[in-house]
Amino acid sequence: MNTNRNLQLLFDRPSEPVFTTKGNENVVFDVPAHYLTDRYQTFGQSLSNRYGENASEHIPVKSVQSVNLGEIEQLSRYDAFSIFVPKHRRLACALVDIFLGCTDTDNLISTSLYCKDRVNPAMYNYALSIAMLHRPDTRNVPVPTLIQTFPDRFINSAVFSQAREEAQLVSPELRSPIVIPRDFTASDLDEEHRVAYWREDIGNNLHHWHWHLVYPFESNTRAIVAKDRRGELFYYMHEQILARYNFERLANQLARVKQYNNFREPVKEGYFPKLQTILASRGWTPRQENMMIQDLDRPVDEIRMTVSDFEIYIRRIYDAIHSGMVMDRNGGTIVLDEIRGIDVLGDLIEASMLSVNPDYYGNVHNFGHLFLGYIHDPEGKYLERPGIMADPATDLRDPIFFRWHAFIDEMFQDYKATIPRYTRGLLNNPDIRLTDVVVNTEGGSPNVFDTFWMQSDLDLSRGLDFVERGGIFVRHTHLNHSPFTYNITVNNTGPAKMGTVRIYLSPKFDERGLPWQFREHRLMFIEMDKFFTQLQPGNNNIVRRSDESSVTIPYERTFRNLETGRDATDADSFNFCGCGHPQHLLVPRGTPSGMACQLFVMVSNYELDKVEQSLEGSCADAASYCGIKDKLYPDRRSMGYPFDRFPPDNVGTLEDFMTPNMIAKDVTIRFSDRTVLNPRNTTNVPPQT
Amino acid sequence: MNTNRNLQLLFDRPSEPVFTTKGNENVVFDVPAHYLTDRYQTFGQSLSNRYGENASEHIPVKSVQSVNLGEIEQLSRYDAFSIFVPKHRRLACALVDIFLGCTDTDNLISTSLYCKDRVNPAMYNYALSIAMLHRPDTRNVPVPTLIQTFPDRFINSAVFSQAREEAQLVSPELRSPIVIPRDFTASDLDEEHRVAYWREDIGNNLHHWHWHLVYPFESNTRAIVAKDRRGELFYYMHEQILARYNFERLANQLARVKQYNNFREPVKEGYFPKLQTILASRGWTPRQENMMIQDLDRPVDEIRMTVSDFEIYIRRIYDAIHSGMVMDRNGGTIVLDEIRGIDVLGDLIEASMLSVNPDYYGNVHNFGHLFLGYIHDPEGKYLERPGIMADPATDLRDPIFFRWHAFIDEMFQDYKATIPRYTRGLLNNPDIRLTDVVVNTEGGSPNVFDTFWMQSDLDLSRGLDFVERGGIFVRHTHLNHSPFTYNITVNNTGPAKMGTVRIYLSPKFDERGLPWQFREHRLMFIEMDKFFTQLQPGNNNIVRRSDESSVTIPYERTFRNLETGRDATDADSFNFCGCGHPQHLLVPRGTPSGMACQLFVMVSNYELDKVEQSLEGSCADAASYCGIKDKLYPDRRSMGYPFDRFPPDNVGTLEDFMTPNMIAKDVTIRFSDRTVLNPRNTTNVPPQT
Repeated sequence: MNTNRNLQLLFDRPSEPVFTTKGNENVVFDVPAHYLTDRYQTFGQSLSNRYGENASEHIPVKSVQSVNLGEIEQLSRYDAFSIFVPKHRRLACALVDIFLGCTDTDNLISTSLYCKDRVNPAMYNYALSIAMLHRPDTRNVPVPTLIQTFPDRFINSAVFSQAREEAQLVSPELRSPIVIPRDFTASDLDEEHRVAYWREDIGNNLHHWHWHLVYPFESNTRAIVAKDRRGELFYYMHEQILARYNFERLANQLARVKQYNNFREPVKEGYFPKLQTILASRGWTPRQENMMIQDLDRPVDEIRMTVSDFEIYIRRIYDAIHSGMVMDRNGGTIVLDEIRGIDVLGDLIEASMLSVNPDYYGNVHNFGHLFLGYIHDPEGKYLERPGIMADPATDLRDPIFFRWHAFIDEMFQDYKATIPRYTRGLLNNPDIRLTDVVVNTEGGSPNVFDTFWMQSDLDLSRGLDFVERGGIFVRHTHLNHSPFTYNITVNNTGPAKMGTVRIYLSPKFDERGLPWQFREHRLMFIEMDKFFTQLQPGNNNIVRRSDESSVTIPYERTFRNLETGRDATDADSFNFCGCGHPQHLLVPRGTPSGMACQLFVMVSNYELDKVEQSLEGSCADAASYCGIKDKLYPDRRSMGYPFDRFPPDNVGTLEDFMTPNMIAKDVTIRFSDRTVLNPRNTTNVPPQT
Repeated sequence: MNTNRNLQLLFDRPSEPVFTTKGNENVVFDVPAHYLTDRYQTFGQSLSNRYGENASEHIPVKSVQSVNLGEIEQLSRYDAFSIFVPKHRRLACALVDIFLGCTDTDNLISTSLYCKDRVNPAMYNYALSIAMLHRPDTRNVPVPTLIQTFPDRFINSAVFSQAREEAQLVSPELRSPIVIPRDFTASDLDEEHRVAYWREDIGNNLHHWHWHLVYPFESNTRAIVAKDRRGELFYYMHEQILARYNFERLANQLARVKQYNNFREPVKEGYFPKLQTILASRGWTPRQENMMIQDLDRPVDEIRMTVSDFEIYIRRIYDAIHSGMVMDRNGGTIVLDEIRGIDVLGDLIEASMLSVNPDYYGNVHNFGHLFLGYIHDPEGKYLERPGIMADPATDLRDPIFFRWHAFIDEMFQDYKATIPRYTRGLLNNPDIRLTDVVVNTEGGSPNVFDTFWMQSDLDLSRGLDFVERGGIFVRHTHLNHSPFTYNITVNNTGPAKMGTVRIYLSPKFDERGLPWQFREHRLMFIEMDKFFTQLQPGNNNIVRRSDESSVTIPYERTFRNLETGRDATDADSFNFCGCGHPQHLLVPRGTPSGMACQLFVMVSNYELDKVEQSLEGSCADAASYCGIKDKLYPDRRSMGYPFDRFPPDNVGTLEDFMTPNMIAKDVTIRFSDRTVLNPRNTTNVPPQT
């Protein structure tokens, strides 16, 4: 019996009853009669038999008694589920507990089948994903990506009516992909729309969703939250999202994103997501221009927060940062030191359940999402669902996400300004000198990155409830780049030793066209790669492929199981591998005439970097942004090193900052406005624009 | 061959291709291969055969050559169609011309089948409806009500995902109605929501849609627009909608609606319709609170209008009203006289193509709808569809509709203030004295109207594309009242003669709880009935049933073909009969403790009322609000007589106004908050709240 596959089938077609066929091979779970909900008690058995007759395979299900779901059932199947809503979180944690408490995998399958038609499908998906990621018996079973189960959170809603037409009328072998226009949310009149290709990139949003799944901020099982340097990674992953977003903005003649820090002022940006929930047939409410956040009072969601209180919590966090210490629950103080301070602060600001004093410091980051997510209906007057800012699978699409996170990041940077600057000794690497770096792009010129549009096909049929079976493909357009290698020359005047290669990229000029001051420049560096290497005495030529990056996961993992609708294989295992910036966004877009950039490479002192642990069997593909499951973060330095801190006063520019083990090279990103088909596509319809 | 039925099948499942089975009996049109669109050219024939094999009946279709649709195809099938958008109107008029130009009914069926999959389905529905209403060979074929084809304009979108589950899983005989909650658009926190049951009533919205279908404001065929007293009826029908709305407001402790007349001020009311288009899988954009109309510039829709210009047009209309004359196209003047003035003004303000000077007076009413309909995206920046204010099938749901029309009505009332007051001679009826009127309610007390909630089932399956066949029922809740009779006693001291009985109802007190001044009171009278009667010498006892009202159509006509999914019968004929206030809303809701009202009855002088014409074979069911097809409006008096004009200075109250041929009686509307099932429902699920 293929247990892994059976577990994955639990995610299939989220709102169809348990007795319908699952997966592409039309298998059915043979569920006991009492699993059927009241709706289907009278005639469900005959329906169940009908599906059973057409099934290619029957999966026996060990009967469990009715599960006491208690208040978990209070959230209607048709309501929006948001992990930012305290009540939803409590219900989800209770459901996670039920799944974690199952005695073995069979019991988990059986129990979750009993629950499936009784609880909110989005909450079910979340709780089952968390449980599978953290149960010893299922931790290596790939959790299906969210787009497979809930494509409606990622895809222009207009696709779904066309998909239904296709499914109903066209036999599977004749179906052709439904093309999603690249510009479906706004026109060029909207300046912010210039970077929509990046905000709305499916892989980018899946990364953000997956990160928050790997790093939940609350659980009844503390170990699920208390992962190594969790708070710091919250800071760093989001800092890098911002840096990458600003990189794209500069490439599109937009200034860096402005903080959202005046809550008494309207939000000038509007955003119309053009998404809808398939399950509830409801659109995600747009945010019109010039709306203002208001006091939240939604009793049914157990949300009550005034903007004034929110400002008080923020002021206290600044009090902590600028005084260098945090007040704990007992009135004692915790110093925000150089090493642990950022982690304490990350947990405090988000806030996760690890916050040292949530009563005093509140839940600032999460409530920012709620204030903005409910900006259109803060009191539930209009019975509206939250906007996309209230869901980690959708919030990245909205320009305000970045303005909010620019404000959150500012807090972290204020803290970073209070800790000691790196001395040259902490930057240098004895005996090591970087002499050159060259980027060799496949089919291109040296030191020129080459970007373009690619159209890829995805099969959404597992997320489309109540339609005929067979693959339903959509074709989406995303940025991509030609593969390349870094060719790094390092001179080692000492004995052989290990070194850590850190590769960053930044725009060369700011939005005024001027060279950077280092204190701002350091915030513009995006991590491209980080790896350990053996340095022999003398010259070392290091060749590193772009697809080995420590921040990305390959295309096929971002979209696993979605290309041909195939089921997961063992090669897809290890869930942390699902977390990671998508490979196709590794290189920012650049400009048609070639965007002037700086490639920064450093080989740092391994003795100060190394973390002693075995990584055997672990997936560390995107370790820089995602960490490694059940392991320590594999770099002892502060995340973002060497750019995470303010420079000493005598450092004005990057040049002033450099030590011999660093090199900065002028490179170019040339964007070519052409669209190529992804060679992995299984349908042969030509590209469309 | 059942031509009527075949015509109606053209409306069935609006976005399914022509070759799928239509209607509940699974008939197919045998269309020639070249009717199929490019999408289905390669494999459509085999699909067509597949549907053909399962069909119970084949309708032969005379092949026509390809129709040259020209720019009609420019409006995408997935775009919103709005009759208020000038470009859409032009395309629709061109399509109407194609349908009007068909040589005979067979040719019309064949031509429209060719067009069906090539043009925007909402435009197709509109154009075919208009053409059928006005072609000699089809004028008596009932046009299906819009809810049958586009239920998504009337029904909470959440229903549709449940409907798909029902259709896919449950065999037709086991299906139960999906209950639409009465309060689905807002909570009690929203004061305006108190009257949502009336604004969102399906029959009320169907009436408004149907009225605008019978009275289009533009066509290439002038006769389609130039109906008797069209401009005046535009004024009167909307004035009555307002009076009825204000009646409901007073019953719900809300003040009368405030005009929307300051366009530089935010619209404080928000409205979240919770509707979505099935075809495009897109929600109708809500209007958040405190939005302000802005200059419109949407080149693709050929809309360009500044708020300043809009204000200039409005000022000119006021110039005309207060000076008593309109400037025509040649600079000449047309006096706004007592008889024709209101009609000239109605066409001018709306504006219909009959406007005497559209260049000078603009298109004020229609552009008000556009400004408000595009308030969220006036420049198309966000590629948003219009809001519900841009569609006559949906706009009545929105509180701003009434504020806008209160402003429009104010213009008409300003004109009415300029014309002579009614003399007693114009009000009185020689020899006639009304001595009593009693309302007898079935099972109730005398002079007490009895209102309550009713739940009725509707079959939406013909509007649900790409789902399994068979009825899909929804259960909606609407106001209703117990049947009653008016028992009127009239004393005639002269010879036998005809008289016109005019029955109105108004609240007895204003929102302050004070008795009315007549000049305001007159605007609060809702027409309940109007009929001619023979008056014998001496006492006459006139008994009139509530279901004979001249403003309503019966429940079964409002929802024709929707109860059991049956096809139309000859009894449903005459399309003007589809126009009319729904019978179930004849009586306002009233209050649980009994709302104090005044019933006003007048028997006016038939010699001054009568219009010489034969009404044989005409349907005059709701003639007061809808006129009679191809006939003169059946009342020579100004519409709204005797309340349409300002009173003489010596008339302070209704009592002062009365002549012997009038009577005013204190009556009560008692609302009972109970829900009963419509006895016409075919499913026997108990009522739900």
